[in-house]
Amino acid sequence: MSPLKNANITAIFMDKTYQKYKELRHKIADLDNILAVLGWDQEVYMPIDGAGFRAQQIASLSGILHDMCTSQEYSDLLESLKENQSLNFIEKRNIAESWRILDKNRKLSRAFMERQSRIHSEAYQSWIKARQENSFAVFAPKLKEVVDLQREKAELFGYVVSPYDALLDDYEPGLTTDIVEKVFIDVKKNLTDFFSKIKGRPHPDYAFFDNHFDKAKQLELCRELATDMGYDWNAGRLDLSEHPFTTSFNAKDARITTRVNEKDLRESIWGTIHEAGHALYEQGLPVSEYGLPSGSPISLGIHESQSRLWENNVGKSSTYIKTYWNQFQKYFPEAFGNVSDMQFFRGLNTVKPDLIRINSDEVTYHFHILLRFEIEKNLIEGKTEVKDLEEIWNTNIKEYLDLDVPSPKLGVLQDIHWSHGSFGYFPTYSLGSFYAAQFYHFAEKAIPDLQKELDAKNFKPLLQWLRENIHQHGHTYSSEEICKRITGEGLNYKYFNNYLDKKYAEVYQI
Amino acid sequence: MSPLKNANITAIFMDKTYQKYKELRHKIADLDNILAVLGWDQEVYMPIDGAGFRAQQIASLSGILHDMCTSQEYSDLLESLKENQSLNFIEKRNIAESWRILDKNRKLSRAFMERQSRIHSEAYQSWIKARQENSFAVFAPKLKEVVDLQREKAELFGYVVSPYDALLDDYEPGLTTDIVEKVFIDVKKNLTDFFSKIKGRPHPDYAFFDNHFDKAKQLELCRELATDMGYDWNAGRLDLSEHPFTTSFNAKDARITTRVNEKDLRESIWGTIHEAGHALYEQGLPVSEYGLPSGSPISLGIHESQSRLWENNVGKSSTYIKTYWNQFQKYFPEAFGNVSDMQFFRGLNTVKPDLIRINSDEVTYHFHILLRFEIEKNLIEGKTEVKDLEEIWNTNIKEYLDLDVPSPKLGVLQDIHWSHGSFGYFPTYSLGSFYAAQFYHFAEKAIPDLQKELDAKNFKPLLQWLRENIHQHGHTYSSEEICKRITGEGLNYKYFNNYLDKKYAEVYQI
Repeated sequence: MSPLKNANITAIFMDKTYQKYKELRHKIADLDNILAVLGWDQEVYMPIDGAGFRAQQIASLSGILHDMCTSQEYSDLLESLKENQSLNFIEKRNIAESWRILDKNRKLSRAFMERQSRIHSEAYQSWIKARQENSFAVFAPKLKEVVDLQREKAELFGYVVSPYDALLDDYEPGLTTDIVEKVFIDVKKNLTDFFSKIKGRPHPDYAFFDNHFDKAKQLELCRELATDMGYDWNAGRLDLSEHPFTTSFNAKDARITTRVNEKDLRESIWGTIHEAGHALYEQGLPVSEYGLPSGSPISLGIHESQSRLWENNVGKSSTYIKTYWNQFQKYFPEAFGNVSDMQFFRGLNTVKPDLIRINSDEVTYHFHILLRFEIEKNLIEGKTEVKDLEEIWNTNIKEYLDLDVPSPKLGVLQDIHWSHGSFGYFPTYSLGSFYAAQFYHFAEKAIPDLQKELDAKNFKPLLQWLRENIHQHGHTYSSEEICKRITGEGLNYKYFNNYLDKKYAEVYQI
Repeated sequence: MSPLKNANITAIFMDKTYQKYKELRHKIADLDNILAVLGWDQEVYMPIDGAGFRAQQIASLSGILHDMCTSQEYSDLLESLKENQSLNFIEKRNIAESWRILDKNRKLSRAFMERQSRIHSEAYQSWIKARQENSFAVFAPKLKEVVDLQREKAELFGYVVSPYDALLDDYEPGLTTDIVEKVFIDVKKNLTDFFSKIKGRPHPDYAFFDNHFDKAKQLELCRELATDMGYDWNAGRLDLSEHPFTTSFNAKDARITTRVNEKDLRESIWGTIHEAGHALYEQGLPVSEYGLPSGSPISLGIHESQSRLWENNVGKSSTYIKTYWNQFQKYFPEAFGNVSDMQFFRGLNTVKPDLIRINSDEVTYHFHILLRFEIEKNLIEGKTEVKDLEEIWNTNIKEYLDLDVPSPKLGVLQDIHWSHGSFGYFPTYSLGSFYAAQFYHFAEKAIPDLQKELDAKNFKPLLQWLRENIHQHGHTYSSEEICKRITGEGLNYKYFNNYLDKKYAEVYQI
């Protein structure tokens, strides 16, 4: 047998191994996506009494999925493909990324997972109770258990500098405490400067948002806007849920939800644009790469960049408001009959510190994230104790936003995240905004007359650009790499700063 | 160690084994019910392009479920519990029934299951094509493959008298060709007599059903009727789908769907009553027995008895129509303003042979089933060939219903069942009607003043009776046993015959 023949046989053997890896990834993805269907149904249509059995069904399937993801068979497949040089670039990347995740998964034993699941479930109940009683003391003991568990998890995962790195990496592969800190030094300085610029300037009027907006009409407009963005209704749908979200079972079934407040249309409209932005990313993932890293989104931060790009950079721009002004007036003549497009634009973009993160404007929002980032980092590094959180929270809100926190429900108890053990998640929200500004800057450079296209409600060139530069690659590249491919450098906060300067010059006429 | 102590240890050991069996049954049920969620979503809300990946996801989970249901672990557990005398009655029944199902499942290899899945999928596509081209010849070759496969399946399952017994047993445990044949001798004779009685009598007027009925109003009325029946909305919901169905993920989440035809309210109203009847059975199963035979419905026939009891014995009775007459008039004054309740009742119950099974009245419906039963039996027993089906169909429809079949779409191609390989399913529809009449007769005897309660829209005593006598037992008893417990004898067609006589005396005034 000639060496050539041997090489061929090896190649065929590798092909088969890679094929087996793909088949197993498909099965893993199938179960993962079935869990997403169960979650969607639970949030959107499940009758209330179905909750108990649904939790049990999810637990059963999660157990099977965990076993599959950490099985010897899977591990052996990856092991035999890891050093293989006959794989092409994307295949190599898939194996490397799959290996990285397997390695993390294996560090958490089934016993740890079950303990985590129990503690989070108890913590969530305790958070609900604490909110009802408006008392942080009710939540503190369980939150301490969650923090201890997260610190244990960080040790299990391992890290180089800070244990918080290990947690950040779970949501944003490669992200470290150091990177976030450096970005936030700029954020803090620039936003403080920004505040001083608009200080004393009169706030735009936004009383017209306090009106009645028919639910059916809001939903009709939401659908129209999502359609214009390029959201594919044959591969998705819009429903109502208590907390708006996007979920995807594959690129051909990526669903969004919204929430309608009849007293204020902003929640449904910009909520839908935001979720449709997430869903366009999912619908744009390559179908042929289903279940593989090359067919999956990169990270929470990049996902959030897609939603925020559409919501803020596009949807809250003066161009967009002008373009859709006829529609807003047609749908809601009573509310906006005597309002001009630019009044609407300015009202929509008013900067006004709010105690609640999710009600905050694009600027003060990031102080909320900074506050949470600092608290999380110090908790995980053991420099802060849970019992002191309420005081720390209130002091920092005063410092950053000049607001007094009247009660824990409006302060330290406002977010669900910590009760779920989501430490390291919050920073990805800010990263999303910063990446969005950076990407959008380059989209504007790359697409001839982008503003004119948007004026004409033609979002195809923008979507096409996002598809080509981001969506189609799945997770073949890291956040850092995709950012460098598009912009020539890693995450740079200056683009967001420039975006704010430009936008708020219009809003505050400075 | 005393013998007593030994016995205790054995009892504890058995307890633990039974506990393990229960835990495994829960996991099996979880996966089975997750498949039902995927099915519900597919029929009700899934966007069209999601179909491909959904099929793949269902196949993956089905494979895992099949492995679990036929695993050595499960088999060993059942084996060690099978002869155990320390189990109580219900536990023994659960083990016996679980063993029966395992034994059947193990007779079909994974290779057979995969072949079956492929053939059915191809047959379904071919049936769709045949209907489009209105040509039985297009479907015949694939149908022949399905029939051959079903015959092979019957051999794998094994049988005593007819291979068709093995297929019937899959839908109605214990049912045999012989039993069905005997019942249908009565059916044929009695229904023929019945026809001669009403022959020549003027048909009731039902032109008023040909009207406009607002969709939203129909749905409102559907909800009202289901609520009155006792359908628990905290443990279910009503949606729209192309083909109405009931699905249950557990007793706390049993959902129904309906279809609305704005030109005729009968589809949605009696369709909803029918599905709600199914769902009341599911909601009435004991929660503590989740996943066990003692927490599952008995059979398709008994399930159908619940839906038809509510739809026909209750919902199409003159009492029901009189009780709800104000509602019908309130919802649809234009259609029914000049109609009396008894005119409506008579119109609703007109006997008029129809080429299409699902459009048929309560009487001629059973000729449709007889026809299909005879064809299936002869095909599976090898006495008829697929190529002759169209001719056999048309000849028999002429004989039974005196109708000429103008085209295969209105004849042999009308049902989806055969393309899915559902041979042995049709007879359970008729059994459902017959069981319903038999049960209802005894409900009327057992519940003081049942008619008065129904007059007052009080369905609680009836539901309570069904819960106590049928629902709460799950599948602890067989169809035959439950029927004997309630009525002192097995299935007896005479109750249905008496029911028809009484009802149609009112309808046709004979």
